[in-house]
Amino acid sequence: MAGEIRVIPLEGIPELEEGDDLGALLAAAAERTGGVEPGDVVVVAQKAVSKVEGRVVSLDDVEPSDRARQLTGPDGDPRHVEVILRETKEVVRSRPPLVITETHHGFVCASAGVDASNAKGAGTLVLLPVDPDASARRLRERLHELTGVWLAVVVSDSFGRAWRQGTTDVALGVAGFSPLRDLRGTPDAAGRELHTTQIAVADELAGAAELVLGKARQVPAALVRGVHLDGDGSAQELLMPRERDLFR
Amino acid sequence: MAGEIRVIPLEGIPELEEGDDLGALLAAAAERTGGVEPGDVVVVAQKAVSKVEGRVVSLDDVEPSDRARQLTGPDGDPRHVEVILRETKEVVRSRPPLVITETHHGFVCASAGVDASNAKGAGTLVLLPVDPDASARRLRERLHELTGVWLAVVVSDSFGRAWRQGTTDVALGVAGFSPLRDLRGTPDAAGRELHTTQIAVADELAGAAELVLGKARQVPAALVRGVHLDGDGSAQELLMPRERDLFR
Repeated sequence: MAGEIRVIPLEGIPELEEGDDLGALLAAAAERTGGVEPGDVVVVAQKAVSKVEGRVVSLDDVEPSDRARQLTGPDGDPRHVEVILRETKEVVRSRPPLVITETHHGFVCASAGVDASNAKGAGTLVLLPVDPDASARRLRERLHELTGVWLAVVVSDSFGRAWRQGTTDVALGVAGFSPLRDLRGTPDAAGRELHTTQIAVADELAGAAELVLGKARQVPAALVRGVHLDGDGSAQELLMPRERDLFR
Repeated sequence: MAGEIRVIPLEGIPELEEGDDLGALLAAAAERTGGVEPGDVVVVAQKAVSKVEGRVVSLDDVEPSDRARQLTGPDGDPRHVEVILRETKEVVRSRPPLVITETHHGFVCASAGVDASNAKGAGTLVLLPVDPDASARRLRERLHELTGVWLAVVVSDSFGRAWRQGTTDVALGVAGFSPLRDLRGTPDAAGRELHTTQIAVADELAGAAELVLGKARQVPAALVRGVHLDGDGSAQELLMPRERDLFR
């Protein structure tokens, strides 16, 4: 139907290991749904990207610092906290076992995005990609090689929010489109100006994809079809500049 | 396709006035797309709900208080700030022209959700519904009367976020489902526990719908089809309890 959006799960992707060709696995999964189309967005969970990029740490290899021990709650593992601190530019809030930090990329999130669940083996942690925009660009290029189509790509993760319960998926990395849709200066339905509106379309795409991803099934990615996107950009544009940040 | 989600714009809804039968207009718009199905979610923009509920204020009727004058920036209108303060339980941050407040409902957002754009006439403001959950429940009941189907309903609005640029749409009111999907205690793909994950599925539905709503066209609502929802609840569950709030 004209104007509608489809969110199509990319299924049948096996447990991932460092060095796996994620682009080829996504292209094959998309082919099984009928193939990609120009304008499609591939949203892929950060954890899938991190695993193929080898962003996995074994707790056995970690020696916790004094700072890590201080920030660890009574039931926590100071080695886990140490890994979080290594991924951290600045601790924004800490109330063990919760620690909210700014990552080296500039994302403000719980545990610097370091996650234990879904990691292979009980003693391993998955870190965020070193450069999620670069990860998205590489996937975009690989998918173009394999399908002949230039797709938009989002690398997503589940973040908590200030003042609201529950997580929503947001964009950590993007390629092939502008993550903010700028409505500033465009007329509204009443013919007057919309003064200040920028829509974080990359985050809404990530959240829409999460509705089919599911944490407990092996669906690490989705195609979103029918969204009009334009421009080009970086997920860094989604970060609030420090001088405009009212909340730390 | 099995497992896919569709986001279907509800188009052709005219400019709304107090007392309009929004449920009937939505049902007619849905009928033009082929009709509703059990399990469908109707996401409707707060502004449409507020207009039919008469939550519109004329600036000519407002006398600003001293507090409103203090919080007004050099280019602002103290009457506009006065209306924001009347909708406010607590001012969380203020840096004119920006004011972040907690509304009487408990939502933390810019300008207490008071909005000038899209209001009819230049001198009017649109307020949030008095009780967005009740608005959602009334729409759900009216849609059931008209279609024979019990639908889920979300009343949505565009909110900014701490630390991230741009707005995403979130749920202010819900009916017919639980707005948080609780994965706590369910096994992950590796067979271990997901300890703490709650997904704000109502907010992701609102964001997905925003991708077709568009601020500048007259599409105040969308159907989201194919999302498995369960339970029942209130959008108040999406509010972070004050004792767990680290950010004010």
